[in-house]
Amino acid sequence: MQPTLKTYLPILSWGRSYNRTALSNDLMAALIVTIMLIPQSLAYALLAGLPAEAGLYASIVPIMLYAVFGTSRALAVGPVAVVSLMTAAALSNIVEQGSMGYGIAALSLAGLSGVILLAMGLFRLGFIANFLSHPVIAGFITASGLLIAAGQIKHILGIPAQGHTLLEILASLIQHLPQINISTAVIGVLATAFLFWVRKGMKPALTRLGVKGGLIGIAVKAAPVAVIIATTSAVWGLGLADQGVRIVGAVPQALPPLTLPSFSPALLQQLLLPAFLISIIGFVESISVAQTLAAKKRQRIDPDQELIGLGAANIGASLTGGFPVTGGFSRSVVNFDAGAETPAAGAFTAIGLAIAALALTPLIYFLPNATLAATIIVAVLSLVDFSILRKSWRYSKADFAAVLVTIVLTLTMGVEAGVSAGVGLSILLHLYRSSRPHIAEVGQIPGTEHFRNILRHKVLTDPAVVSLRVDESLYFANARFLEDKIHNRVAGDPRIRHVILQCTAINEIDFSALESLERINERLAEMDVKLHLSEVKGPVMDRLENQHFLHQLTGQIFLSQFEAAQTLKSQPIGEVRNQQPD
Amino acid sequence: MQPTLKTYLPILSWGRSYNRTALSNDLMAALIVTIMLIPQSLAYALLAGLPAEAGLYASIVPIMLYAVFGTSRALAVGPVAVVSLMTAAALSNIVEQGSMGYGIAALSLAGLSGVILLAMGLFRLGFIANFLSHPVIAGFITASGLLIAAGQIKHILGIPAQGHTLLEILASLIQHLPQINISTAVIGVLATAFLFWVRKGMKPALTRLGVKGGLIGIAVKAAPVAVIIATTSAVWGLGLADQGVRIVGAVPQALPPLTLPSFSPALLQQLLLPAFLISIIGFVESISVAQTLAAKKRQRIDPDQELIGLGAANIGASLTGGFPVTGGFSRSVVNFDAGAETPAAGAFTAIGLAIAALALTPLIYFLPNATLAATIIVAVLSLVDFSILRKSWRYSKADFAAVLVTIVLTLTMGVEAGVSAGVGLSILLHLYRSSRPHIAEVGQIPGTEHFRNILRHKVLTDPAVVSLRVDESLYFANARFLEDKIHNRVAGDPRIRHVILQCTAINEIDFSALESLERINERLAEMDVKLHLSEVKGPVMDRLENQHFLHQLTGQIFLSQFEAAQTLKSQPIGEVRNQQPD
Repeated sequence: MQPTLKTYLPILSWGRSYNRTALSNDLMAALIVTIMLIPQSLAYALLAGLPAEAGLYASIVPIMLYAVFGTSRALAVGPVAVVSLMTAAALSNIVEQGSMGYGIAALSLAGLSGVILLAMGLFRLGFIANFLSHPVIAGFITASGLLIAAGQIKHILGIPAQGHTLLEILASLIQHLPQINISTAVIGVLATAFLFWVRKGMKPALTRLGVKGGLIGIAVKAAPVAVIIATTSAVWGLGLADQGVRIVGAVPQALPPLTLPSFSPALLQQLLLPAFLISIIGFVESISVAQTLAAKKRQRIDPDQELIGLGAANIGASLTGGFPVTGGFSRSVVNFDAGAETPAAGAFTAIGLAIAALALTPLIYFLPNATLAATIIVAVLSLVDFSILRKSWRYSKADFAAVLVTIVLTLTMGVEAGVSAGVGLSILLHLYRSSRPHIAEVGQIPGTEHFRNILRHKVLTDPAVVSLRVDESLYFANARFLEDKIHNRVAGDPRIRHVILQCTAINEIDFSALESLERINERLAEMDVKLHLSEVKGPVMDRLENQHFLHQLTGQIFLSQFEAAQTLKSQPIGEVRNQQPD
Repeated sequence: MQPTLKTYLPILSWGRSYNRTALSNDLMAALIVTIMLIPQSLAYALLAGLPAEAGLYASIVPIMLYAVFGTSRALAVGPVAVVSLMTAAALSNIVEQGSMGYGIAALSLAGLSGVILLAMGLFRLGFIANFLSHPVIAGFITASGLLIAAGQIKHILGIPAQGHTLLEILASLIQHLPQINISTAVIGVLATAFLFWVRKGMKPALTRLGVKGGLIGIAVKAAPVAVIIATTSAVWGLGLADQGVRIVGAVPQALPPLTLPSFSPALLQQLLLPAFLISIIGFVESISVAQTLAAKKRQRIDPDQELIGLGAANIGASLTGGFPVTGGFSRSVVNFDAGAETPAAGAFTAIGLAIAALALTPLIYFLPNATLAATIIVAVLSLVDFSILRKSWRYSKADFAAVLVTIVLTLTMGVEAGVSAGVGLSILLHLYRSSRPHIAEVGQIPGTEHFRNILRHKVLTDPAVVSLRVDESLYFANARFLEDKIHNRVAGDPRIRHVILQCTAINEIDFSALESLERINERLAEMDVKLHLSEVKGPVMDRLENQHFLHQLTGQIFLSQFEAAQTLKSQPIGEVRNQQPD
């Protein structure tokens, strides 16, 4: 399909049929999401090591741009936990947190990530994200969730602590424990406990009290806002800020500022790998949410266009005081459940947040950081799910190894090392498996034209003819394996006169494998054995056509394995082999 | 097969049946190979940046050890051109050539390489070598041949020059050209020209003169020795050494010394990557020669045992004043052609070289380095073969890209960068291809039970049933691609009620793909479409058994695609689709 303007600007498709019903649905969804996003945005900005207002800014223009360029009707774009953590990890290696340079580096990281996403979209390179296997992502998100939660404990207790690995964070927490601020700890622990109860216990409790389902839903969503109001009032009323409770403080009462990221080549070079990883992880998280939601309404998602949408959103974030953003799971689900019909819902959310940035920021002056930390802890612990270890162990040891390495390295060596090692290991394990393909020696099932594995079935074979079925495409990693297998099978049995390769499962033969086949053919010829092929697939045959190998081949190419066996049989098929019952 | 003592000591197999015929054949082969190896060993030592005698030492104990542990009956182990070049490249980054440390580092490199090979053999890791695709090896060897030849020109012209990339070498040659030594240049150019003529022109010339074939063969093999005698005599008789002709000089008249490599952790760490690459390249070169020769006599080669044999040879080299060795192509072919029957021929060659080291070294005092350089140039230019570029271009652009990158990077950035980039690129291209598998929508060929691609054949389909055949195993790199394909196919057509995945070509489903299938199943259920599988292979089905996916699956699992289509057809199969004639 040739891309048209409509491909690159999905707004042209849904914009034309926009009507009043859609408008009112979108407005309602936007209101609910705005209320939910205010505390979340502030909290994730702190997680990323930035001032709280950056979280609001990162949610305004990026949402607007995604609404124009994105293909999902329900995806809500903004700061998310894992990407915020990765931002903090990337920046803290380079600049001091809290310094002027830190905020600018965050803009550059968002900009670089936006350019990478945009380039991947325009050059249709979205497939790169496929190399993050599901177990690696699951392991990474679980480990990140733990790291984030551990990193927030210092805000809950009001102590200074540092570190990027689990051990560093825990050691630093224990070391600074004597400096605990009791007022902060009371607020933090109460807020965390209450928010946990909201998630787990509030619904049954309200149901028992006879509250109706719809009201319960609203109560659950409003609870975090209630906690903010309660704790902010407490800090203000009791003057706790003077007792050392850290608060959000003065937030500029303004629309997102126009900002310019740094273009320093040295900085960009240091940010390149983190930006790439943030782009990939963000894209994977986002596309998976988008597809799940789209499926519910039989809508299409174009992954390459999604890259463009997320790229535009991140570039927008870098120009308006934000930091890296992506499509978030919880906010998108809330958006969808609240009835959002089109990306316009996102635009209305952005307007809601802009009003909040202009009008509401004075109200959060006394909001304690501990409350935001409680919000984060409760949100990320829902990401932690060790069941992937058990599930992958039951299904495949290779997948289990990839998960385990990802989790352990993410916790002990940081997010970048963890995700890179997980990807590297899963690629190596995949290559290892396909480098030793299943090669079955096959024989004819009596009375049929079918050929099956001689080890699994009662089949007829001919001592002078060996038929081998390779259950894998032939490429460099398994070409030599095939040479060895065939050589050793034939060298050990002087009765053999013909080798037939049944090519049913061979979807591709690369140049290395072609040369290996030539070599196999030559070596078999030295042993006075002919090489034949059967059931070669069309596209594979097209490639082999006109190659030296076909002229050189000592044997024939047969349409079917049955035809090959019939033609080559030296004597009435007799010897019945029966290694194992069916 | 359980490994026994006989597996690890192949000498126990052939040694028992050793008889007088084998002995006389082996002795004759050893004599011919010894004559050929003397100049070659000296020359490759100089190529590696070591004193000439190191070449003899590297050919004595290693050959003996390979004879005990190796499985090839004809392989001749010793210094070879490409490995010597890699040795020089690895060492010159670390120590000054000609310094004491250089020789010791060469011992350490051989020892490390030996340990790596041995470990790969004992842990059956020979498959690692499979990741060097044929095009990458061919490109690497061609580029190395050019680099080696360029590097020898300084010896031919008697000028100092340096550099590890083609441009560096050429620039240095041009810069130092005014310092040319005329006597050296005359010897060097004449020797090179003569040796070229021996390769290309001598056989036809002698045939025209009526000389018999057998004699011609001996003349061709003896020619390098004749060049050595002639140039050595000339230097001695004309006193050319006083005119600046560089000569081999005093070579200790001794058996290989007992030496100890350095165990400095810093040095070993620097040598680790080069040692690994040397091991892999050496193993690939060696195993390919060994298998070619073994095929001619229907003998078996055990790749893992070959690793052990080469590992022992390299450890031997490191303990007796040598440098990294492997099985060489030309010497092994000469050995085989001369009638070597068992590895004992190698042992006799070693004895011959030991005698040469004891008795003949005074005779090569006046041997000019230019003659050895001529030997190397003529030998390596036979390795240079750019036809791989044309061949791979015709067969597959991906393979061509891998060759091109390997050649260009080897020439411009050195051997290690070249081979690493080639391997990396071929793995990436392979992953890319398998990440976008061929997915055919299939329909029934009228009157048969066969289902084929609707784009290639006249087939019957049912508007409510979509049958898809994926021509690739399902794993993380293509799992999401499948999700997209199915989602988009179904989202676009509201008539669809059933999706059948025909699993004929699916040899494996990894954990990511399993989760994708679960997700596909869920999303199809949201659209009120059922997912079915047909023709699932035994081993794949075994794995799926007891997994959540099977309980959750909205559709059924059918033994055959025909059965699936029959069961699900909503109406008498009617709509005939015919996109394209056969």
